[in-house]
Amino acid sequence: MGSSLTISLDAMGGDHGLDSTVPASLAALSEHPDLRLILVGDEAAVNEKLNSCGASNSERLEVQHASQVVEMDDKPAHAMRMKKDSSMRVAINMVKEGRADACVSAGNTGALMATARFVLKMLPGIDRPAICGLLPTIPGFCHMLDMGANVDASADNLFEFAVMGSVLASAVNNIDSPSVGLLNIGEEEIKGNERIKEAARLLSESKLNYVGYVEGDGIYAGKANVIVCDGFNGNIALKASEGVAKMISHKIKQSFTKNIFTKIAGLVAMPVLNCFRKTIDPRRYNGASLLGLQGIAVKSHGGADALAFQTAINQAIIEVRNRVPERINEQLERLLVEQRDES
Amino acid sequence: MGSSLTISLDAMGGDHGLDSTVPASLAALSEHPDLRLILVGDEAAVNEKLNSCGASNSERLEVQHASQVVEMDDKPAHAMRMKKDSSMRVAINMVKEGRADACVSAGNTGALMATARFVLKMLPGIDRPAICGLLPTIPGFCHMLDMGANVDASADNLFEFAVMGSVLASAVNNIDSPSVGLLNIGEEEIKGNERIKEAARLLSESKLNYVGYVEGDGIYAGKANVIVCDGFNGNIALKASEGVAKMISHKIKQSFTKNIFTKIAGLVAMPVLNCFRKTIDPRRYNGASLLGLQGIAVKSHGGADALAFQTAINQAIIEVRNRVPERINEQLERLLVEQRDES
Repeated sequence: MGSSLTISLDAMGGDHGLDSTVPASLAALSEHPDLRLILVGDEAAVNEKLNSCGASNSERLEVQHASQVVEMDDKPAHAMRMKKDSSMRVAINMVKEGRADACVSAGNTGALMATARFVLKMLPGIDRPAICGLLPTIPGFCHMLDMGANVDASADNLFEFAVMGSVLASAVNNIDSPSVGLLNIGEEEIKGNERIKEAARLLSESKLNYVGYVEGDGIYAGKANVIVCDGFNGNIALKASEGVAKMISHKIKQSFTKNIFTKIAGLVAMPVLNCFRKTIDPRRYNGASLLGLQGIAVKSHGGADALAFQTAINQAIIEVRNRVPERINEQLERLLVEQRDES
Repeated sequence: MGSSLTISLDAMGGDHGLDSTVPASLAALSEHPDLRLILVGDEAAVNEKLNSCGASNSERLEVQHASQVVEMDDKPAHAMRMKKDSSMRVAINMVKEGRADACVSAGNTGALMATARFVLKMLPGIDRPAICGLLPTIPGFCHMLDMGANVDASADNLFEFAVMGSVLASAVNNIDSPSVGLLNIGEEEIKGNERIKEAARLLSESKLNYVGYVEGDGIYAGKANVIVCDGFNGNIALKASEGVAKMISHKIKQSFTKNIFTKIAGLVAMPVLNCFRKTIDPRRYNGASLLGLQGIAVKSHGGADALAFQTAINQAIIEVRNRVPERINEQLERLLVEQRDES
């Protein structure tokens, strides 16, 4: 710990923009005495929001003006070409220029991915970036990637995702030799398409702790520390899971408000249910890592509130402290050297 | 209603075999006075189980001997070639021979699909069969297909799935012009891969009530009556959903057993929670339809208990009464004629 670190924030991004990012920033600064933040966005609006939140002047908090905002429905190419002074782009530039150690944005995923890739560049040996998120499981949590950076992925891409996810899990969560599973529609060797079978072969032959295929329900049963899949399947699994959780929450509420008796039962049960809800609160799992880049960029959920956005800032802090991109690079080189030595 | 119908059951299939299928059969017979069942399996074992359940002789219940059983890990090709006298195969044969109006099995999905396709044959104009299941949603329920019959699907396949799902929803649930959505990773027109975009074009130009792309969470928000996807994504979404539901159930139980106070709260809350649990009980949604065949075959979940297996029998009954294969055939012809007339 000890040495100070700086994170640049896309202050305008996400559904709630400054209403989330400013309070989250203030909370993060008071939690981490060695943290410096750069809020990137419309200077007047950011300062107004800071004032209304009663923020005092601090040399740990800087505002950097950016005249444009990437909208949630902007196409990535449009954002890249036409919005070179967007809060998102400027926040990423600061990482490239060495003025920040990491950046966080709740903005448009596609634009963030494309811009981060363009500005920060890929790590050597990594073909495509991946979005890696944290999910709650019965025994604890797991990392899943890709959650939507790529519509599809080759066997080699899936192998690279496995390396990156494995490094993240060991660097960030101190898991020694994290178990890695491939998301598939069956656990038997015969299941799945050719790309997945080929990825399974690559993983079996590697030094990674590959544990085989994992089905959709295996994610939450905790079958592996790292779940690898293409971005299409990852996104479908993630969103379907969110949908089920919302439906269950809705139906539980409905059950407790049916009549006077259930309402009374609800009064007794609510404190316990609220406590349970905290353990799977998506805000506690916010902050997906954009892996494979020569720099740290964290994607917050677009709908993040201040608490959720603060979790994403924390994720960036942990990745900086644990030098995640450098470690991915080292691990990749080590695996390649080992494979060369064996053949 | 009125006229009697006959259903053949693979009595040996599934994790619980006769322990599920026999009690389910007896319950179904007493629920439906016009139902006839043929229990296919090892005659001695079936009769023994019938006796132990206290079943009286009934002309509505027949036992058909079959000397083999398809195991859960048998490859489809092996089951087809080497187990021609399996309880699964014989139950399907009976539909082909006109001795039964439909068959139900909780056995190996791949073998069931392959055998049903081989024996019953596809409907003209349908390239591939699909597994269509019922899922609970916030406003009620929806049909999703394909849930795993095909690892991938072309745009034409997805279009056929949409037609079949639409017919099933209107025939079985009396939904006039069911809304049809395509499962995708975003709701915007630009999202998704080429196959999905092409399927969207086909659906937009058709007379089906196509409502556009639906994301994973949209399934449970009730965005469409019928959700169309390839078998890989359908299976991933379904299993991930099951996994989340199990995790939530586990964590709720954990929360209520933490200490004496939460245990007391649990006593008060349990009746309400159990009532809620019933509304999303997977046993109430058991019985997936194998669509696209010239005959009715229903797949029960492998882990189905007697109640769940009975739900699958009910699904078969409803499909017989509503002539699902004939109506898919009619609808497909109508859509093709309309398209021809327009071009």
